[in-house]
Amino acid sequence: MQHFASDNYAGICPEALAALIEANNSGHEPAYGDDSWTQGVCDRIRDLFQTDCEVFFVFNGTAANSLALASLCQSYHSLICHELAHIETDECGGPEFFSGGSKLLTAPGIDGKLTPDAIETIVTRRADIHYPKPKVVTLTQSTEVGTVYSVEEIRAIAAIAKRRHLKVHMDGARFANAVASLNVHPSEITWRAGVDVLCFGGTKNGLPVGEAVIFFDKTLAVDFAYRLKQAGQLASKMRFISAPWLGLLNNDVWLRNAKHANAMAQLMAERLAGIDGVKVMFKPQANAVFAELPPHVAQALRAKGWKFYQFIGSGGCRLMCAWDTLAETVEQFTDEIRALCAAR
Amino acid sequence: MQHFASDNYAGICPEALAALIEANNSGHEPAYGDDSWTQGVCDRIRDLFQTDCEVFFVFNGTAANSLALASLCQSYHSLICHELAHIETDECGGPEFFSGGSKLLTAPGIDGKLTPDAIETIVTRRADIHYPKPKVVTLTQSTEVGTVYSVEEIRAIAAIAKRRHLKVHMDGARFANAVASLNVHPSEITWRAGVDVLCFGGTKNGLPVGEAVIFFDKTLAVDFAYRLKQAGQLASKMRFISAPWLGLLNNDVWLRNAKHANAMAQLMAERLAGIDGVKVMFKPQANAVFAELPPHVAQALRAKGWKFYQFIGSGGCRLMCAWDTLAETVEQFTDEIRALCAAR
Amino acid sequence: MQHFASDNYAGICPEALAALIEANNSGHEPAYGDDSWTQGVCDRIRDLFQTDCEVFFVFNGTAANSLALASLCQSYHSLICHELAHIETDECGGPEFFSGGSKLLTAPGIDGKLTPDAIETIVTRRADIHYPKPKVVTLTQSTEVGTVYSVEEIRAIAAIAKRRHLKVHMDGARFANAVASLNVHPSEITWRAGVDVLCFGGTKNGLPVGEAVIFFDKTLAVDFAYRLKQAGQLASKMRFISAPWLGLLNNDVWLRNAKHANAMAQLMAERLAGIDGVKVMFKPQANAVFAELPPHVAQALRAKGWKFYQFIGSGGCRLMCAWDTLAETVEQFTDEIRALCAAR
Amino acid sequence: MQHFASDNYAGICPEALAALIEANNSGHEPAYGDDSWTQGVCDRIRDLFQTDCEVFFVFNGTAANSLALASLCQSYHSLICHELAHIETDECGGPEFFSGGSKLLTAPGIDGKLTPDAIETIVTRRADIHYPKPKVVTLTQSTEVGTVYSVEEIRAIAAIAKRRHLKVHMDGARFANAVASLNVHPSEITWRAGVDVLCFGGTKNGLPVGEAVIFFDKTLAVDFAYRLKQAGQLASKMRFISAPWLGLLNNDVWLRNAKHANAMAQLMAERLAGIDGVKVMFKPQANAVFAELPPHVAQALRAKGWKFYQFIGSGGCRLMCAWDTLAETVEQFTDEIRALCAAR
Repeated sequence: MQHFASDNYAGICPEALAALIEANNSGHEPAYGDDSWTQGVCDRIRDLFQTDCEVFFVFNGTAANSLALASLCQSYHSLICHELAHIETDECGGPEFFSGGSKLLTAPGIDGKLTPDAIETIVTRRADIHYPKPKVVTLTQSTEVGTVYSVEEIRAIAAIAKRRHLKVHMDGARFANAVASLNVHPSEITWRAGVDVLCFGGTKNGLPVGEAVIFFDKTLAVDFAYRLKQAGQLASKMRFISAPWLGLLNNDVWLRNAKHANAMAQLMAERLAGIDGVKVMFKPQANAVFAELPPHVAQALRAKGWKFYQFIGSGGCRLMCAWDTLAETVEQFTDEIRALCAAR
Repeated sequence: MQHFASDNYAGICPEALAALIEANNSGHEPAYGDDSWTQGVCDRIRDLFQTDCEVFFVFNGTAANSLALASLCQSYHSLICHELAHIETDECGGPEFFSGGSKLLTAPGIDGKLTPDAIETIVTRRADIHYPKPKVVTLTQSTEVGTVYSVEEIRAIAAIAKRRHLKVHMDGARFANAVASLNVHPSEITWRAGVDVLCFGGTKNGLPVGEAVIFFDKTLAVDFAYRLKQAGQLASKMRFISAPWLGLLNNDVWLRNAKHANAMAQLMAERLAGIDGVKVMFKPQANAVFAELPPHVAQALRAKGWKFYQFIGSGGCRLMCAWDTLAETVEQFTDEIRALCAAR
Repeated sequence: MQHFASDNYAGICPEALAALIEANNSGHEPAYGDDSWTQGVCDRIRDLFQTDCEVFFVFNGTAANSLALASLCQSYHSLICHELAHIETDECGGPEFFSGGSKLLTAPGIDGKLTPDAIETIVTRRADIHYPKPKVVTLTQSTEVGTVYSVEEIRAIAAIAKRRHLKVHMDGARFANAVASLNVHPSEITWRAGVDVLCFGGTKNGLPVGEAVIFFDKTLAVDFAYRLKQAGQLASKMRFISAPWLGLLNNDVWLRNAKHANAMAQLMAERLAGIDGVKVMFKPQANAVFAELPPHVAQALRAKGWKFYQFIGSGGCRLMCAWDTLAETVEQFTDEIRALCAAR
Repeated sequence: MQHFASDNYAGICPEALAALIEANNSGHEPAYGDDSWTQGVCDRIRDLFQTDCEVFFVFNGTAANSLALASLCQSYHSLICHELAHIETDECGGPEFFSGGSKLLTAPGIDGKLTPDAIETIVTRRADIHYPKPKVVTLTQSTEVGTVYSVEEIRAIAAIAKRRHLKVHMDGARFANAVASLNVHPSEITWRAGVDVLCFGGTKNGLPVGEAVIFFDKTLAVDFAYRLKQAGQLASKMRFISAPWLGLLNNDVWLRNAKHANAMAQLMAERLAGIDGVKVMFKPQANAVFAELPPHVAQALRAKGWKFYQFIGSGGCRLMCAWDTLAETVEQFTDEIRALCAAR
């Protein structure tokens, strides 16, 4: 049975699994990234972004974001993020831990997006040593509420960041979905727009485990390999982390996976829009739909075995589509909602 | 080509890979360990050890050891380990990082082993607040030089530890090799001997990625799940970390893999022992052989493409055998050594 | 010229200075607290609180609060505080640093006070491992806006804390002012009400430097001396930190100093209340008055050399009275405000 | 009664106390260093060193050294120090704590001194990411065994440090004693020799509390004020930390105090040298004498009330002289030793 709780409920996509199996067939391989695969995958990512960036692989998103952010600030600095940012709400203090105590300064913003004004307000609020000095702006692309920053929005944020001497980090747990949604080259919403570091999510896109940390500003990556090692993020059998990325990168499987997930969210939203008593909360631009369902409907769906999360601090439901979500699943789910709504 | 650089040069053993693939076939599964596999594997490990322990999965050995140790002490405490302990020599300060600054106090000891006397000496050396207070003894089983603590040795260390109010941690990156070597029940060299926490290595035994942290003293595991999450060690698609353990645990594949690797080390040692100019440095009791080779021999071997590490701070070579090391490889390697030694 | 910017603008009160000078007359004294003074002062504090508590001296409030809090939680836990709490707004991430990343969860509350309901709301908001688990409630007494928790309010908060397995910490930078205001025995608003740890402020009460950390629950103080040493808070010439406390404790100088400061704030508030265009923002119960002054008035006062802070995030002014604030100063200051207000 | 346990058994020297009292007479003063004294004292220190350095005041030596070192490296870096360095043996893991886990790599060296060769050996021992990368060399001047690095020795160490891209830190808890001993300008053994950061000790030189951290390379001091604040090392009533320095700096009291302490150590060494059964262990160049006394003599001295420390890991005794040590005390102490030695 498929669910809409999270895109990490999905398994490994066939191409990634095939690459993993193929990597296993080569017998003995040097460890810690000196194998036949890892540097090749790094090069592929450099090609993809059309720039000479530094690429590192880590095990998950907590580590990717926390370590990337820790490399951009010291413990007495602060990070500016949206109040719904995953690093604020769902990492159990990971960024604070890896940075040794950096504070997250949260800003409100419609559609889950930071704005230049919100950043400016935070940066200018305090200028004394009794409050941690802002050093980083971090954006989630696509956002935690399924929206997407436009190229212009990112550029505007990066512009204010540069003016205020802040580094720009992008939490790209669902970066592929944003690229698919905007239909732009990946460079357009990253380094060409002013992003310094990207955490490029692989797990939700079809990998078993693993994310890539990409430093477009290579000076920020100095000794980052040591940081990873110390932080328990250096895989010994690295090829099993890196090779599956080949499965995603070859033939643009990563984009195809993302497009499919986005299309399923679109389908979900369209079908929900037509149901009396259901309200879609944000314009779905990636692979998430947030919808207010009548409480008895949400309850009945769960009783039937459907899994999905409550949206923090609201009555809404978060419905995530994955690379393998079937149209039939969306149809069945929305049919059941329609029936349940009609029943009262 | 096979190598003797490390047992992590080997790939995934067939049974683990099969379990991973099977776990993928189940479609959508709850994340973060609430899947069909993870709790089952934990139960299997509890059965294996014949006790109601707490089991957690992490991505690698750095994290397993560092986080387990961090849960046993505070930043102003210290850990007692052998001067050749992996946590001291090869973790880039991981234990210090995760504990927030705990100091490793190293002791010498023949065959890479700590002794009750060495521990006693360290514990009683200082008793003032200007030096971090010892709280943990950590053993590596099998050791970094391929030897194995006997049941009695572990018991004796645990006894002095209890008397001095120290917790006992075991770095079991090659725990399977020790069990295979001693031919005892795993409980005999862990909780029945007084070990509080075991890091049970899976990667070197045939997994793609992942180790288990096993708390025999369950009170020490309170909130450890939060610690893992914050530290970037909670896999979202957990089944791909846990399920492969089934491949190892079913039919005692883990023991078979370890026995094979040990046997290959035995073969290596026997063949080396008969070569003039070669000296085996430690009695090989697990899957490692340390041997002094004439410098020109080591150089010639490397020139032929063989990979193996220098033993830190000595002229010796470390030769590791893996679950998949072929007898033919050992024979070819030692034949080449014999020929090279004879050539001068 | 006296100011109202902070009670830490005041110097050392005569009794504290006399004790410091006397401590210097004894020539050589053992260091790190083994002198003739330190244990005696600890005993005096135990007498004062009528209980066998553990007492430690640190250099300042940042350290007192941060280290006390760090001893109550781990990095993956969280602390509940008021949104105006000093530890949140003015410690530059000190609590996050010393705890290794604990998150501060802030609650609103009128008069700068936490309430049982606000605590309950935060504790019950999340129960998953993706969010740091609450372990501590921290109160500031007197509060950051010059109000005071009543005995009943503290008891009610401690009751909910105990039910939710939270420890209770009190930031008592101005504890003396609270005791003076409530006219109760110090034990009544600390351990008898359920407080586990108190940071008893000395600096603002008339010391040159130094605060006391008092653990009423002695089990929480295990190895705290090591924590202080490691954290750079163990004075070598400890007598110069501890002895001045004698000056405060003998003849209840600490209470007299606090009462005087409170009385000056009372005088300030009464005089301000009668001025058209001035609004006192909170009922002044300790040594602070917050008042909204017409902008041109605040500006004119500063032009004349008066120093005082803006209240964060508001148009109000914070006016602090110290142990040495003269009635004449209050009168002159308020007369000038009256004149400035009348001039338009 | 005077003792030889530590130079921190001495009190406040008259000039420092007078400055503290005078600073108190000025009534209200801005806090956190914006007072009438602090910037002036910083300027005096700049004058003293004849260079435009950045100066910060902290409460003690643990904090001075730990925070200075933390500003020179990240958690995955390492620091090279002598095996007898105070930061290694007597700070309870302070440097590890404040840096978030940096490892201290210790080197042996006669007379308690690091050498270029020892540094080179450590730097070149490892070049892989499994071991923390060396970033700092730290010297103690005068050393923990009462010797002094010559100008040439410091220059040679700084030269190898620069070649290996290491920063140079000097633990100057007894810097004044070294300057007095060498009879050179303070700049000659600091920035002119290649030292980047000096922790200039005030406490042992006659202050009640406080050390200065001096960055000769000002780029290393960026945001250091934030670091201090977060770390609990920013005094609110800063004048009482800074003003006493004036007492030391005016009329070169700091040098006079150091010269006196050194002379007393000289006297001690001379008198001990003539006693049968006593062996002076190191050439006394500052204010410490290390001497092997017959065990019964040391015991008898302690029974008479004399306090002094055992030298870690040896049968020697550490005898420290302070700014106020009387020649009579040295004479009486050595007379008693002579008598005790003769008695057997």
